[in-house]
Amino acid sequence: MYVIAMYDVGEKRVGKMLKHMRRYLHWIQNSVFEGEITESKMEELRIGARYIMEEESDSLIIFKTRQEKWLDKEIVGIERSSIG
Amino acid sequence: MYVIAMYDVGEKRVGKMLKHMRRYLHWIQNSVFEGEITESKMEELRIGARYIMEEESDSLIIFKTRQEKWLDKEIVGIERSSIG
Repeated sequence: MYVIAMYDVGEKRVGKMLKHMRRYLHWIQNSVFEGEITESKMEELRIGARYIMEEESDSLIIFKTRQEKWLDKEIVGIERSSIG
Repeated sequence: MYVIAMYDVGEKRVGKMLKHMRRYLHWIQNSVFEGEITESKMEELRIGARYIMEEESDSLIIFKTRQEKWLDKEIVGIERSSIG
């Protein structure tokens, strides 16, 4: 599946969360990532994220789609990162 | 169409950009928005965003899908904002 994931975590946890997310997805902007991922890797991502996050204050939103072609990406201004 | 949009703009332009985006979409986290939007409203959003943004340093990413049902949203931790 193809996912777009974005976190909003306390400052102290930003570094850890960034490193964790980068293990599974491509960074595209601020705290936003995208990429193709398997269900089992997605579960790893979730477990690791829950371990880092304070669930009462932090948030991770994941948009999933079965096929990347169902998503069209448009960039206005500069592109921070390209996955080619 | 259904869109997920996220901006990364200089601090001075955050307030204006937030206000602009809220006119068209639902805020869900940090600088991330989602919602159903028509092609003409999307064009308005784009024009307004370009007017606010410094195109050499700021960025707006828009993911579009024809049908909301093609996207599945999952939230880990707290939900900042709900569109019900």
